[in-house]
Amino acid sequence: MSLVETIARIRGEVCALHAELTRYELVVWTAGNVSARVPGQELMVIKPSGVSYNDLTPEQMVVTDLHGQPVNGDATGEWGNPPLSPSSDTAAHAYVYRHMPDVGGVVHTHSTYATAWAARGESIPCVLTMMGDEFGGSIPVGPFALIGDDSIGQGIVETLKNSSSPAVLMQNHGPFTIGKDARSAVKAAVMCEEVARTVHISRQLGEPIPIDQGHIDSLYARYQNVYGQ
Amino acid sequence: MSLVETIARIRGEVCALHAELTRYELVVWTAGNVSARVPGQELMVIKPSGVSYNDLTPEQMVVTDLHGQPVNGDATGEWGNPPLSPSSDTAAHAYVYRHMPDVGGVVHTHSTYATAWAARGESIPCVLTMMGDEFGGSIPVGPFALIGDDSIGQGIVETLKNSSSPAVLMQNHGPFTIGKDARSAVKAAVMCEEVARTVHISRQLGEPIPIDQGHIDSLYARYQNVYGQ
Amino acid sequence: MSLVETIARIRGEVCALHAELTRYELVVWTAGNVSARVPGQELMVIKPSGVSYNDLTPEQMVVTDLHGQPVNGDATGEWGNPPLSPSSDTAAHAYVYRHMPDVGGVVHTHSTYATAWAARGESIPCVLTMMGDEFGGSIPVGPFALIGDDSIGQGIVETLKNSSSPAVLMQNHGPFTIGKDARSAVKAAVMCEEVARTVHISRQLGEPIPIDQGHIDSLYARYQNVYGQ
Amino acid sequence: MSLVETIARIRGEVCALHAELTRYELVVWTAGNVSARVPGQELMVIKPSGVSYNDLTPEQMVVTDLHGQPVNGDATGEWGNPPLSPSSDTAAHAYVYRHMPDVGGVVHTHSTYATAWAARGESIPCVLTMMGDEFGGSIPVGPFALIGDDSIGQGIVETLKNSSSPAVLMQNHGPFTIGKDARSAVKAAVMCEEVARTVHISRQLGEPIPIDQGHIDSLYARYQNVYGQ
Repeated sequence: MSLVETIARIRGEVCALHAELTRYELVVWTAGNVSARVPGQELMVIKPSGVSYNDLTPEQMVVTDLHGQPVNGDATGEWGNPPLSPSSDTAAHAYVYRHMPDVGGVVHTHSTYATAWAARGESIPCVLTMMGDEFGGSIPVGPFALIGDDSIGQGIVETLKNSSSPAVLMQNHGPFTIGKDARSAVKAAVMCEEVARTVHISRQLGEPIPIDQGHIDSLYARYQNVYGQ
Repeated sequence: MSLVETIARIRGEVCALHAELTRYELVVWTAGNVSARVPGQELMVIKPSGVSYNDLTPEQMVVTDLHGQPVNGDATGEWGNPPLSPSSDTAAHAYVYRHMPDVGGVVHTHSTYATAWAARGESIPCVLTMMGDEFGGSIPVGPFALIGDDSIGQGIVETLKNSSSPAVLMQNHGPFTIGKDARSAVKAAVMCEEVARTVHISRQLGEPIPIDQGHIDSLYARYQNVYGQ
Repeated sequence: MSLVETIARIRGEVCALHAELTRYELVVWTAGNVSARVPGQELMVIKPSGVSYNDLTPEQMVVTDLHGQPVNGDATGEWGNPPLSPSSDTAAHAYVYRHMPDVGGVVHTHSTYATAWAARGESIPCVLTMMGDEFGGSIPVGPFALIGDDSIGQGIVETLKNSSSPAVLMQNHGPFTIGKDARSAVKAAVMCEEVARTVHISRQLGEPIPIDQGHIDSLYARYQNVYGQ
Repeated sequence: MSLVETIARIRGEVCALHAELTRYELVVWTAGNVSARVPGQELMVIKPSGVSYNDLTPEQMVVTDLHGQPVNGDATGEWGNPPLSPSSDTAAHAYVYRHMPDVGGVVHTHSTYATAWAARGESIPCVLTMMGDEFGGSIPVGPFALIGDDSIGQGIVETLKNSSSPAVLMQNHGPFTIGKDARSAVKAAVMCEEVARTVHISRQLGEPIPIDQGHIDSLYARYQNVYGQ
């Protein structure tokens, strides 16, 4: 498959995955985005800025380099970038791809419950077997950071590089999630909101029972190796 | 485009925007409304009173003057007003258009979380970067006002004229939002409920971390100037 | 229109109105029901017991007398009652029609927030202008009553006969609502859950501001006389 | 009907019932499963592991013995098991079928409110007539148990064998429900989340009023014998 064909395929996937963000009500209006690394290239594909989810088409997905600059093609051909700016969060996604070579997908939302924890700067404790499975422990908080430079990207990478969690709650802002590909990062965004909601609701009427770290480690090891097909 | 054609276009837009109110669950039954100013005219277009959202058609949108009186046409022709009364909130919308010349759209809902803050008469503090972006600070509360005269309109205008926020929470009543056009006012209504919900949920389990006013100002300035296409 | 034709029309309306209960998420599985009085007759039309909302057809709606006994026709003809038992709440609906001659429709749900107030035996205070409009005051609580005789019907009638509210919260059970016809009773069920939710959420973080009874009376009088077409 | 035909029918039912889990928002991504016993056989039918709900087809449902091992056919013919692993919760379902001969269906979800009670290890008190009807008392909590052996199945059976409740909240994990067939178990899962949510919300603002055990017994006896067609 040529690079032009590969990019067409990834644009289709990235576009379609935004429908999961609306389906699970992780985003309103235009406030969230999915990106994917182009495997083996210094390129990524990301949502354009401020376009409604209903109106998204694969052709509108913007191809950029790993500093967030749109790139229209290379020696092998043109892939027809649209006349649209990439997401205003592109710099943060690009920073993650530059510094975490195993990451193939990044997602950002302001999903309600995860953002509620983020507004208090509080990590989500691991009190559900589902959290042990997916996150291998608590979901950590990253620093407050303003948009406009590498601060957000740095905060994500610093927080996640030594964590089993694929999700970080950026303080006062919302969750960023990573995965081996864009679909995995979307799954992490869905599960992050699910456990943020369930643990929040549990704590409204008392303290959830902690799970021993040994049990969490067992759950995580098994799920990462045995679950699925 | 003739005035008759312009009004037909605006009726289509105002009718379609009501679908965003139901999509984001900002309204139940018939309890909410969108209006738009007819640019350059002393006219506005608004939902009829008490008609179900599912049954709305563009032709049912009522054209009124900026005192809320239905107007059927002018020297250039008839635009065929329906035999329907305009929204019972028409006077409030009209007052806003008369006193805020830059406003092109007004929305009123009783969306759950925004109305919950309104029932306590409490403004929503700016503890989310998304609030800094959209509202430039807290979302203010307007006075208790009875329907039937200019009290509601006055309360909206008095509260918003010195605020960066496009949303006001009318005490014991619910949010009104404004925008440069009807679509912007609908977006403000969606974002108002989103931040009302997220900050409410965050505060259920502790105090959210405040954001410095300097950071809020940066977020707001950037978002108003850079975001989108 | 013959009585057979009238019953066919009412069956269609009662069947269709159940879709509003699912649309506004007032019911799960088969747990809720709508009925209508047949005007001028000692007859009513109600949902069959234990049938899924998705499977409901007009022909399945059961015609009963005002003691809840199925009736298949009269001297003017047969209306083809289905071989289905009427709702297990039929006795309560019938009791209301016998004792409140102006009531043309009754609805029962276990909608979440209204039932949460009912489980505490606590009436919903009137702290929203929307409540003033629709309910003219607080939404009252009725007694605990077991199904199987007239206890539930008596509790509804005793509570509502001297109240402006078309909704009663039966203790530990859930809301019953009434209206001049089935559509009005469904609207009251939708608005009851909406205000139950909004006032609940408002009270989670403090006390809502009361509305003066004089203002409530003004809102109620105006809404009952002026709103809509 | 031959066994091959019976299995085809059950696969269709089990597949279709997963749509009720998503419709009532009891599951996200792939986190929940339905199974059914094949009547009169040492066989069961269950969802494959890690397949999206949208993509499920009847042919993908896996037939296993009552120790969870896939079985492709018997002397009467092949039923064409797919090349997919059964749900990672298969061992727990199988254990229930081995030890509770009247159970024909089992469901597992991580539905939000039921799981929130489970995370605190707290049973849901019977304060709603709907709970009396369906559960005949409180919904009990089962032990913390790791996936991988019979611990979860044992915890379910030990908790439910002396209870009228068809639902158990496994600590830190989520609800398992049983029924005479898969549809009944799905109904129990839906009603479990409904009462978990309503009682949670009721308790947020005070203590719900208890229902006398004699009244609960009356409700349960009547509902199990009279309700429905």
